[in-house]
Amino acid sequence: MLWQDASCRVIRVNDRDYPGYCRLIWNEHVAEMSDLAPSDQRHCFNILMAVEVALRECFQPAKINLASFGNVVPHLHWHLIPREVDDRHFPEPIWGQTQRSSSGTFREMDDARLALAIRNAIAEQLSG
Amino acid sequence: MLWQDASCRVIRVNDRDYPGYCRLIWNEHVAEMSDLAPSDQRHCFNILMAVEVALRECFQPAKINLASFGNVVPHLHWHLIPREVDDRHFPEPIWGQTQRSSSGTFREMDDARLALAIRNAIAEQLSG
Repeated sequence: MLWQDASCRVIRVNDRDYPGYCRLIWNEHVAEMSDLAPSDQRHCFNILMAVEVALRECFQPAKINLASFGNVVPHLHWHLIPREVDDRHFPEPIWGQTQRSSSGTFREMDDARLALAIRNAIAEQLSG
Repeated sequence: MLWQDASCRVIRVNDRDYPGYCRLIWNEHVAEMSDLAPSDQRHCFNILMAVEVALRECFQPAKINLASFGNVVPHLHWHLIPREVDDRHFPEPIWGQTQRSSSGTFREMDDARLALAIRNAIAEQLSG
């Protein structure tokens, strides 16, 4: 767990191939973004954008991938995945065909520093 | 092309397996959502939400999938994909392993009706 408030939480996914992989999980049970009230949609989106900013700052990745599927578990959550051009699936989405065994040359980043970057980015986003 | 304004456009993807598949493409060249000014982020997100609403209304799908990758073409765009439990990849993302040959039992929807639903949903979202 990297960050939380009354509405949602941000966790770091334990994925050896994708060290920056985070998930934003909405607390209340809804299936789709458009099931949320407009103010909650905006809040969810603000947190998503702030985590994107923090991940870019911490990992300086080639690309950020964002996705909300919920096909298996129809509970609103977002995947945020920093990608590198030599990661396991690039340029495919991480759910696509494996491209190479290398897991990519990602920067190292401990949980505490990532959590701090997320907290700062969220404060910035919500004040803007 | 289903809808456009000065900032972005919504197109229907010609995919036999996913008749409701749409793409929201930002006109100005940026790679990431967080490269946009805050007001443009909000606009892009409002259009994304409105298209989600229109797709739910038109297709009444089992699930909506949203994704922004841009690994191949690093130009901001969003995939919006109505999913059915018997579609080609369910419950995998459409970039994952094929699950069955059936292309799913999606409702039929012509471009004009879908375009109208999107126009109405966008007007509603932007006024809300």
